[in-house]
Amino acid sequence: MKKEVLYLKIAKIIEDQISTGILNLGDKLPSIRSVQKLYNVSINTVKQAFLELENRSLIEPRAKSGYFVSKTSQRKSSLPTVGELKSVPYEKPPEDLISKVFNTLTNKDIIQFSLGAADKKMLPIAKLNKGITKVIRDLEDCGTGYEPAQGSLNLRRTLAKWSLVLEGKLNEDDFVTTSGTMNAIFNCLFAVTKPGDTVAVETPVYFGILQVIKSLGLKVIEIPSHPITGVDLEALKKVLPKLAACCFVTNFSNPLGSLMPEEHKIELVKMLTHHNIPLIEDDLYGNLFFGKGRPRPCKFFDEAGIVMWCGSVSKTLAPGYRVGWVAPGKFKDKIIRQKLLHTISTPSLYEEVIADFMEHGRYDHHLRAFRNRLYANCLQFQRAVEDYFPEGTKISQPQGGFMLWVEVDQKIDTAELYDTALKENISFAPGRMFTQHNQYNNCMRLNYALEWNERTESGLKTLGNIIKKAM
Amino acid sequence: MKKEVLYLKIAKIIEDQISTGILNLGDKLPSIRSVQKLYNVSINTVKQAFLELENRSLIEPRAKSGYFVSKTSQRKSSLPTVGELKSVPYEKPPEDLISKVFNTLTNKDIIQFSLGAADKKMLPIAKLNKGITKVIRDLEDCGTGYEPAQGSLNLRRTLAKWSLVLEGKLNEDDFVTTSGTMNAIFNCLFAVTKPGDTVAVETPVYFGILQVIKSLGLKVIEIPSHPITGVDLEALKKVLPKLAACCFVTNFSNPLGSLMPEEHKIELVKMLTHHNIPLIEDDLYGNLFFGKGRPRPCKFFDEAGIVMWCGSVSKTLAPGYRVGWVAPGKFKDKIIRQKLLHTISTPSLYEEVIADFMEHGRYDHHLRAFRNRLYANCLQFQRAVEDYFPEGTKISQPQGGFMLWVEVDQKIDTAELYDTALKENISFAPGRMFTQHNQYNNCMRLNYALEWNERTESGLKTLGNIIKKAM
Repeated sequence: MKKEVLYLKIAKIIEDQISTGILNLGDKLPSIRSVQKLYNVSINTVKQAFLELENRSLIEPRAKSGYFVSKTSQRKSSLPTVGELKSVPYEKPPEDLISKVFNTLTNKDIIQFSLGAADKKMLPIAKLNKGITKVIRDLEDCGTGYEPAQGSLNLRRTLAKWSLVLEGKLNEDDFVTTSGTMNAIFNCLFAVTKPGDTVAVETPVYFGILQVIKSLGLKVIEIPSHPITGVDLEALKKVLPKLAACCFVTNFSNPLGSLMPEEHKIELVKMLTHHNIPLIEDDLYGNLFFGKGRPRPCKFFDEAGIVMWCGSVSKTLAPGYRVGWVAPGKFKDKIIRQKLLHTISTPSLYEEVIADFMEHGRYDHHLRAFRNRLYANCLQFQRAVEDYFPEGTKISQPQGGFMLWVEVDQKIDTAELYDTALKENISFAPGRMFTQHNQYNNCMRLNYALEWNERTESGLKTLGNIIKKAM
Repeated sequence: MKKEVLYLKIAKIIEDQISTGILNLGDKLPSIRSVQKLYNVSINTVKQAFLELENRSLIEPRAKSGYFVSKTSQRKSSLPTVGELKSVPYEKPPEDLISKVFNTLTNKDIIQFSLGAADKKMLPIAKLNKGITKVIRDLEDCGTGYEPAQGSLNLRRTLAKWSLVLEGKLNEDDFVTTSGTMNAIFNCLFAVTKPGDTVAVETPVYFGILQVIKSLGLKVIEIPSHPITGVDLEALKKVLPKLAACCFVTNFSNPLGSLMPEEHKIELVKMLTHHNIPLIEDDLYGNLFFGKGRPRPCKFFDEAGIVMWCGSVSKTLAPGYRVGWVAPGKFKDKIIRQKLLHTISTPSLYEEVIADFMEHGRYDHHLRAFRNRLYANCLQFQRAVEDYFPEGTKISQPQGGFMLWVEVDQKIDTAELYDTALKENISFAPGRMFTQHNQYNNCMRLNYALEWNERTESGLKTLGNIIKKAM
């Protein structure tokens, strides 16, 4: 048996012991040496197994005392409520609320828990700039000429190489570059739907996806999603015949941070293939995993070409570059043609800069550090919310990405709370923004891709106090 | 009376003499001194009047002999035929033909008369590169952050300043930046139409506009357009009640090069305002005038905010930058919102580079030289077509821009001719590309923004021979 699989097996045994209550919160784990003897494996294998469990925040090391079952591992009871399958949208759409939150995003005096992007201090701006200087030197006519409609060949080649998670199933010819992921999603929707059609999304769902679907004259069905495992496939099955397309964030959805398990992905693709329903898979957070590795997207299991796999560097490198892409399966020709019609081509420069950055290992290096910081921040945010928010507050358990979903007492209306918090220079994204129905009014999304420091902690403390006061 | 007006008056008198036949082809004009005495004006005023007439290619200087009525001035009889108002599109759309022509565009062995962009040798690439280096140094976070949805403030400010032709009617808040003009047009169409609606365009019309309109599920009515004065307003009136929008290139249309006279613009805006029909005014060639100055767009006469004025630097500086804009009148909020939904923002860098280039007089300087070269090229192309193409060939008289529209004998099918020409490494755009009807089969569009040299001339000669042979 491979060493790699062995350590995961041991981790699984311990995980099961925690989930079944053989090991409880605060319990000390057996020592590394005793586990080694028990399973007759190397010290390193046990260390790897413990690291794996630690990475998934099921156990935590305490100085000179060994490993203990962590608080996080016990948080199952306090996951936020799963939404319901509803039909008619609420008469009052949350557009005004969204505009209000958007309007404060550039104010630097405000702690921007509402932001949908990482704090720039966490991004490798200086290295990207060096890339620009290099690319200008090398690029033919410095990008003044039209790029081919499919996008930079260098970027597409690098994307194909980088899609290791797909084990070589995609090559450069399978990708089309876009102006960020939202533009990829817009293009995909435009290609596979016509006005009046219905599209399924998760609930809660990133409001931008809701808005772009509605802007195309389409209807939306929000599919209940579990904070850990994402879209409820049984609920999806019920509405399948109505659907023209699905649009899901399978890896670390926004705002829940859920990760669709691989067996769900396989079933989803099978189901949609059978009904010939395209899946727009928004995988923009996939590289920001906290678990053992980059989760595979649904695209990996797609034989019929129905999955349109969308990605970008907006969440990991440079939102303003507007560099995104899609591997549109059997809809590729249509997507290229649409891109040609809607904008002719994308600018070359940034695509080349990203290709260069990815190719020379800098992206890999950045992602490793970035993931570590995000995970540490996630734990800090969860801890602070538990410490400062009222008892009974429910918190999501993100598997990756940088969004935390928090549910407070039903009496609280977070949209009203927003105005109070803003007076204290704190901004968050009220739950009502993430649905077309009258729900999540006592929820909020917090962005934890902010530098963790006293100001951040005190912001969460103040926010907690505001909620307590409102109750 | 102002000197400026005086020279135009004298030019007008001579122009009338030419058009009424008082002065004929080859006639020598009175000397500068005698004109000066005749009208009791300064030598400079007469020189200016002659220069104006020369710029409009009505007269031409001959070394040591003075000025003569030019051949071009007499070309009225050989203007291409005006298209007809037709209803049902021809069953065979020209998409295959368009793809075929597109597929050869990057082949450098081919003389690209079919290109829709200027030869890069005519563009200030080195200066633009210097701009990039400068902007990277100054730009906050080097453009890694999201730009505001409305676009770079610097660019919008510069555009407002640069829109001198509008005499200060627009300010920075009136513009929204886009990813080139096609993207501006797409956004405008998306904002003011719904599937099934009808949009009016010129005929012949740039195929990209036809395609983008059809991609939105809209119907097209092609309005007959005169090679000199553009859209036939009487024809437009007949279909006005059917229209959801108009999309016209009022200044130097592609492919005709026509210029809508100011009185037509005033009438058009009045007519559309009365019927509350938005005008998408594609003014991307407006700065490439051959006449006395930058023609005013319809936007200038728009009081009700129905004109959505689109522009870009794709035809004058750097197609690959994808920097465009629109002043969308009363539809501004909708356009900004759509941009946010479709792509969140445009990348800052190139917008800043263009703003910098415009602000420091480099754009002005480049345009002056560029216009002169284009005008000289236009005359060379017209002369060569007259010399090498069969007798009876009709040629457009572009008032600006860089497209020549040529109509040959009715027996000739330019789509078939294209294959023959391609074997000789010559590409042009067959007339059938520029309409949804079965017409212009004996027409072609030639791009004269190519370096004028022996290769270009010999290309036109070969093309002429191919046509002669086909007859």
